[in-house]
Amino acid sequence: MNHKVDLNCDMGESFGTYSLGNDQVILDYVTSANIACGFHAGDPATMRETVKLALEKNVGIGAHPGLQDLAGFGRRPMAVTPREVYDLVIYQIGALYGFVKAEGGKLQHVKAHGAMYNMAAGDAKLSEAIAEAVYKIDPELVLFGLSGSEIVSAGDKIGLRTANEVFSDRTYQPDGTLTPRSQDNALITDPDAAIRQVIRMVKENKVATTHGTDASLKADTICIHGDGKTAKEFAMHISSSLKEAGIDIQHIHKIV
Amino acid sequence: MNHKVDLNCDMGESFGTYSLGNDQVILDYVTSANIACGFHAGDPATMRETVKLALEKNVGIGAHPGLQDLAGFGRRPMAVTPREVYDLVIYQIGALYGFVKAEGGKLQHVKAHGAMYNMAAGDAKLSEAIAEAVYKIDPELVLFGLSGSEIVSAGDKIGLRTANEVFSDRTYQPDGTLTPRSQDNALITDPDAAIRQVIRMVKENKVATTHGTDASLKADTICIHGDGKTAKEFAMHISSSLKEAGIDIQHIHKIV
Amino acid sequence: MNHKVDLNCDMGESFGTYSLGNDQVILDYVTSANIACGFHAGDPATMRETVKLALEKNVGIGAHPGLQDLAGFGRRPMAVTPREVYDLVIYQIGALYGFVKAEGGKLQHVKAHGAMYNMAAGDAKLSEAIAEAVYKIDPELVLFGLSGSEIVSAGDKIGLRTANEVFSDRTYQPDGTLTPRSQDNALITDPDAAIRQVIRMVKENKVATTHGTDASLKADTICIHGDGKTAKEFAMHISSSLKEAGIDIQHIHKIV
Amino acid sequence: MNHKVDLNCDMGESFGTYSLGNDQVILDYVTSANIACGFHAGDPATMRETVKLALEKNVGIGAHPGLQDLAGFGRRPMAVTPREVYDLVIYQIGALYGFVKAEGGKLQHVKAHGAMYNMAAGDAKLSEAIAEAVYKIDPELVLFGLSGSEIVSAGDKIGLRTANEVFSDRTYQPDGTLTPRSQDNALITDPDAAIRQVIRMVKENKVATTHGTDASLKADTICIHGDGKTAKEFAMHISSSLKEAGIDIQHIHKIV
Repeated sequence: MNHKVDLNCDMGESFGTYSLGNDQVILDYVTSANIACGFHAGDPATMRETVKLALEKNVGIGAHPGLQDLAGFGRRPMAVTPREVYDLVIYQIGALYGFVKAEGGKLQHVKAHGAMYNMAAGDAKLSEAIAEAVYKIDPELVLFGLSGSEIVSAGDKIGLRTANEVFSDRTYQPDGTLTPRSQDNALITDPDAAIRQVIRMVKENKVATTHGTDASLKADTICIHGDGKTAKEFAMHISSSLKEAGIDIQHIHKIV
Repeated sequence: MNHKVDLNCDMGESFGTYSLGNDQVILDYVTSANIACGFHAGDPATMRETVKLALEKNVGIGAHPGLQDLAGFGRRPMAVTPREVYDLVIYQIGALYGFVKAEGGKLQHVKAHGAMYNMAAGDAKLSEAIAEAVYKIDPELVLFGLSGSEIVSAGDKIGLRTANEVFSDRTYQPDGTLTPRSQDNALITDPDAAIRQVIRMVKENKVATTHGTDASLKADTICIHGDGKTAKEFAMHISSSLKEAGIDIQHIHKIV
Repeated sequence: MNHKVDLNCDMGESFGTYSLGNDQVILDYVTSANIACGFHAGDPATMRETVKLALEKNVGIGAHPGLQDLAGFGRRPMAVTPREVYDLVIYQIGALYGFVKAEGGKLQHVKAHGAMYNMAAGDAKLSEAIAEAVYKIDPELVLFGLSGSEIVSAGDKIGLRTANEVFSDRTYQPDGTLTPRSQDNALITDPDAAIRQVIRMVKENKVATTHGTDASLKADTICIHGDGKTAKEFAMHISSSLKEAGIDIQHIHKIV
Repeated sequence: MNHKVDLNCDMGESFGTYSLGNDQVILDYVTSANIACGFHAGDPATMRETVKLALEKNVGIGAHPGLQDLAGFGRRPMAVTPREVYDLVIYQIGALYGFVKAEGGKLQHVKAHGAMYNMAAGDAKLSEAIAEAVYKIDPELVLFGLSGSEIVSAGDKIGLRTANEVFSDRTYQPDGTLTPRSQDNALITDPDAAIRQVIRMVKENKVATTHGTDASLKADTICIHGDGKTAKEFAMHISSSLKEAGIDIQHIHKIV
């Protein structure tokens, strides 16, 4: 049996007159779309259009809730309580659900965005708040989280299906966490090295760390980036490379 | 058989540190709560709390979508397209649906707020956009609109149940529309006169107009106000007066 | 003596992660920059950077206040009172003044944006509110407005210097107003025709209207667009064409 | 010679339809008003009205800039860079300056709000950003900061006059910082104890700490609260108690 992995990308990040990303193109290569819900990015019109596009291209639709920080694109950590995060997640999943329902589709997954994702990865209380919000709206939803993080643990504990997410272009620490962006060696800039790392994570559940040793992790879904000039090329490249390596790109609900 | 009518009130209009209204008290007297969805008022925490309170008190839960104008409380008309209104309504119903689902309840109705309500009342295109949004999310929802307005027509046409709404404290024109607030005689300030007007609307489907003649209208639901110092007293007063007049106060889904 | 005209362009319209326009390039060709102040577009960081750039390139700095409608880019007419417009204008001029003062520069002019500009052009009360706000902050500021509009009249009346603004790429009506964008013939798409129209407005104070007749108007400043793929080319083209036609491109304070 | 102290209070925190505080009443007892600038609270209309009121009552006007977090009232710490804080402060001082200029007044001081104030108190970089923003707009402005904090140091260093601020209702730590609100003994709830603490701080430059020892600090200005049911009574009480203790309540520019 072949190895399987899901490919996901953040989408629907335009806002009003402002355009961001290459959703139409990237949707041809991914199996999961994480759609912004209007707090860190996105707006109602963009959500409708992105949901429609994802349905047309048979890409799994996910809510991508973030902190209420449009000015900072949801990337600035904020001192939010678990209750506040719970409310933010319920509200944003609900809003996206509206468009999914109206277009006759089905919501597949939820992935927290930016600072919410990163803060929750190491914080059991925030992760439990996210998992509870997802579960209460629909226990069939798949919860995405950094591989091996508190988000995945909280989702498992409450009874959700969870997807361990890995990053192609980030380096890892011995404990399986990402090297912080503040460090020089945080990013992998060589596309081929990025793809080799991903293939090894999927096939061997291992990743080389910045300390020279290997770390163990699960790779259910790979995050790729939809903005930037080389986004389309990288999407094509990783897609074909995974297939050549004998890895099937599948919808996450066929994997977890 | 007794006459029946639903009593509705706008709710959940607090925002962050700002508190508005007397929801907990008013919920004892009404059968429908129109809950703000975060655009003209309300926020995720307030929505959760208001939904919970309404469920505890067996009050029908409605989404109360408005224009994206927190600074103006959604009361300032804006040049929005039918498509923009459709998107605003889908988004906001969805967001409230999230909390209703999480609390184990059921969404009952939708009532547009402020300028969106008033603009749509006389605009078939905007009304069709609202009706389509409601229908696509859930064709079982009841659509509230000014009695005899384009909102009600659009709801009827698409196949929704609709509720003709009347106001106790506003005067009417011969064509069944409300006297604009810009006119001196727009408001009925005597509570007893307000209640007499409502009882006649429910029992006789008639209202005296500012021109001295009567206008015909249907009264499925009566709007009362939840803010102001006398809100509680008026809610108690209208509730008991309706009962004394042999009118049952019922959930809207038992009426339309 | 040569004819003189000012060239102005809207600037600083980026927001957070979202980038818009080609400010750095366009600033080489214009003499007045209308800088967004955070309500319809722009943010504090963008304002600082744009002010700095304009100072480096010796371009006159103007505040470009708009309606509080980031989602609609300030282009959707809203029912705002003169008092609300006054407050919006004071606030936004003040905010930009902060950056101008901090960078050691001087604020030159004010031009209302989008729907605020268009609504005020035909509304004496709104125009008086704008003119009063500008005057009270600094009576030395130049007020920009559609040539011959209520904005210019209100500025003249209160004692401000005013700049009659013309558009190269829009057609005109016999009464000197712009043909509404909703009409087919609203835009001039041929760059050469656009430039011929502008040169005639500057030299002869006349413009051909869509009805075949001429209309009279004053042309103190010409608005060009900074976004779009051909923005840089058009800026270069209009700049050199004006010079060839014997028209000096000057700062507005040397003209009015 | 008598001891002198300034009394300050946060003001202008209403927003749109939402009302907060008792500005009109409290302004009779304080000498400095810290006016919200629209980011954590306040809006253009409220700013105009509050500036006007403060001028009528001869109360010194201060800008009270906060984080861009209306939903959290600017109280939630956020990961903002010094550059972002600089921009936020310039923008908000400028906006308030607009109203002060339009009303013919003079801006007296700046006090950061909530999380921005607290974060900067212990962070030299953020404090330097605030001090630089204030200085660049107007080197005559007085910078308020927690007594002995980095804000005061940064203000002193850049050449601003600074006001060491003390709190009547908060307990202190041996290093002169406030006991965090998360601790049980953070607040002084007995008004008489609060006033005794303040008088001692003004007269002796000393405060008893929660560890039983005394800490040294300077008290140039005392912060009192304008919201809550007892705000007016406490304002009257502290005002008369200070006078009885031989302490003059003076505008800050006569003290520092």
